[in-house]
Formats: sequence, C-alpha cells, structure tokens
Amino acid sequence: MSTPEGSRTELTRERHRQVENRDRLDALLDSVHIGHVASIAPDGSPLVIPTAVVRDGDLLLLHGSTGSPWMSRAAAGAPIAVAVTAFDGLVFARSAFESSIHYRSAVLFGAVHAITDQAGKLRALDLFTDALMPGRVAEVRRPRAKELAATQVLALPITEWSLKMSADWPQDGPDDVAGTSWAGVVDARIVYGPAHPAPDLPPGIELAPSAQALSAPPPGPPG
Amino acid sequence: MSTPEGSRTELTRERHRQVENRDRLDALLDSVHIGHVASIAPDGSPLVIPTAVVRDGDLLLLHGSTGSPWMSRAAAGAPIAVAVTAFDGLVFARSAFESSIHYRSAVLFGAVHAITDQAGKLRALDLFTDALMPGRVAEVRRPRAKELAATQVLALPITEWSLKMSADWPQDGPDDVAGTSWAGVVDARIVYGPAHPAPDLPPGIELAPSAQALSAPPPGPPG
Repeated sequence: MSTPEGSRTELTRERHRQVENRDRLDALLDSVHIGHVASIAPDGSPLVIPTAVVRDGDLLLLHGSTGSPWMSRAAAGAPIAVAVTAFDGLVFARSAFESSIHYRSAVLFGAVHAITDQAGKLRALDLFTDALMPGRVAEVRRPRAKELAATQVLALPITEWSLKMSADWPQDGPDDVAGTSWAGVVDARIVYGPAHPAPDLPPGIELAPSAQALSAPPPGPPG
Repeated sequence: MSTPEGSRTELTRERHRQVENRDRLDALLDSVHIGHVASIAPDGSPLVIPTAVVRDGDLLLLHGSTGSPWMSRAAAGAPIAVAVTAFDGLVFARSAFESSIHYRSAVLFGAVHAITDQAGKLRALDLFTDALMPGRVAEVRRPRAKELAATQVLALPITEWSLKMSADWPQDGPDDVAGTSWAGVVDARIVYGPAHPAPDLPPGIELAPSAQALSAPPPGPPG
C-alpha cells in the first residue's frame, strides 16, 4: 500500500497474504493484461466488465471503445475499482477445506482521466498491442486518425491499491499429514498456440514472428 | 438473456456478440471457476474481488470465508455483479486497431442468499473441490463441522445475466488484406503442471490420480 487512504486497501483478513511491494505489483500488471473493472451503474447497482489493461509507468491504462457507457461515466469522474488477477496453480491439500488456489491479485481504486490527445492514444495503443502480442507493433501499419478517434483510453493513477498473493504449500494439520492422501501444488499457466492463419490470408505470407514466438512450445526436458 | 429486467443485460454496443443461449452460459460457468465479484463498499465506491465460483443448476455458488466483509454485506441483501471470463485467444489483425481478444464473458446480476445448512455447505464444498480439481473429493477426508462453520457459501440465482463471445477472424479492410502482414488467431488456454509434492508428504505416497489427470500433457500429434 502506498497511500494514506488505507482503509479500503487494507485486507480485513488473511493479512499475511498482503504484499506492499510496488515491484511485485508492477510485475503482476506487466504480465496480466485482462482486468475486471467495477463501477456503479446508473441505477446504483454494481457492474463489472472485463477490459484490456496495461501499465504505463505510474498509470494503469484501460482500453475500450468510445461507445462504452461505463467508460464514459468513468471518464466523467465516477470512481472505479480494477482487479488484475493471475491464476498460478492449485493447492491439493489433504482436505477440501485446506485446498486452495495459488494466485496474485491486485485491486486498484480511484478515478481515471481520459487520454484524448493523438500522441497519447498512439502510445497507449502501441503499449496494449505489444503487451498482448509482444513484437506486433513493428509488424503492422500505424494506426489511422479515425481509428484513434474511435479508441477510448482511460488512465488510472497507481496510487491506491492492494496486492494479495497466495503461494503456500498445503497447511494441513498433523492428523491429515499422517494420512495417506497425496498433497502438493499443481502449477497453472496460460499457453498459446496453435496459430491459425486467417481465411483471407494471401498465399505465401509466412507466420508473423510475434505469433510464432507466442506459440512456441516451452523448452522440453533436458537431454 | 432470460429476464424481463433487460436494461443492464442488454449490450449497448457490439450487439452481434451477445449470446442469449443458456447452454452457452452454462458451458462457460462449468469451465471457468474464478469469478470477479463487484459490490459497493460502505463508502459508496465500487469494489471488485476475485472469488471461486461454481454452478449448481440454476444457482451460481460463491465461495469464501465467514470473515469476508463483502460477503457479509452481500448475504445481508446488497446487490452484486459477477463476471466470469474465459480468455480463449488473440486475434492478430493487420492493424493494431482491429487486433483483439477471443473471449467468452458472462456477467450475472442480483442478490444472493447464504447457504447456511450443513448439508448445503457440504454439497457446495464438494462442487467447488471437484470443479477445480476433478476427482479430488473421493481422495480426501470429509469436511468437519468446524470447517463447514468457517466456510461462507453464497448462492446467486442465474436469472439476470448477459453473455458476450468473441470468436471472429480478423476483420481487416481490403487495403490491409492486400498487404504483406500475417493475420490469424493464436489460441490461448490454461495448462496444468508440473505437480510438486508438498515438503511434508510422507515417503511412498504416489501422486493423486486427480493431480495426475490435471497435469497430463495434451495428446501429441498423431504418428
């Protein structure tokens, strides 16, 4: 936590999972690019929407269309909360109760400002593209003015946030440990591939290096 | 959409992506078990928290601890919204603007009721365990009364919801299609493994079948 308005960023339980290191927050924001944005609907009820997110220094940028009502309300000053969550694995404890999930979960709070200048939108669009598809910006043409006009980019200052990480081994009691049930952790991660060429791809165009790199199989076992 | 209160479940843009088929909703809820719950904090600002979710017929069950403030407020009648999102791939268009994400995204709205009876909590805990770790319930001891007492289960009726799916090929214009940039789709999925035995695992206990099945490598290419 890096803010005086601590109340909503202080965990009310499982405080040992709270992480106050900004580098850890940045590492999460730099590796997960789908966020879930909570806002308040016109009727006063809560709303939640998935959105592409990317960090630009001390800002979290949110990407959308100019036609999005929640983005218009947020751009006009309505407060939001954004969750960015990585699912890292499953904890197989000896009981269902102790079984759990390995995750890293950030929640950021605040009000956004819209990025409206052409240079700022261009920079943001490049950041989104290369975050989701590393190296892709160099492979595609530059955005056009009308495309930038149809793109909404909101910037949330990274000032009020909480980060929770769960990476523990199973916490079974002695009776359960003495039993015969296997216990451990099974990792989870996102993998990409295969790559499917578009039906309208002209013959002779080879797979883009960015798509190739993303789809590459992980290195096999040594030997 | 299956409800008369349609306004907040009707997409305001990209209506062609809206899916009104309940079977498609169930397929998503039966394959993704981390949801993001939006609620309204005591100070009136929006809040969003990741939570384990599992479908039980016409209910979406939410799992947590009895110490969770947002769950207490929800159990007391405060409205929530829950997003369940699958990230299925990346669309490599010939421009950054047309590049996008393949996803399935459900948002459910309403008020929950708490499941407080022991049999209902047992059923819910079994559903969560076997949803996240298929087959695990048969491998671990039964939950104890005090464990059930410390478990909070909320049930949200699946009545007011929207479902949005994006599974298109790149939608590039003729000028871009005539260019030299590769275009297509790169699939994304979650894979599990390897499995790591807990440090306190007694010698001689073999990997649980449930963990083995989850970590199994996908079938290789034929031949």
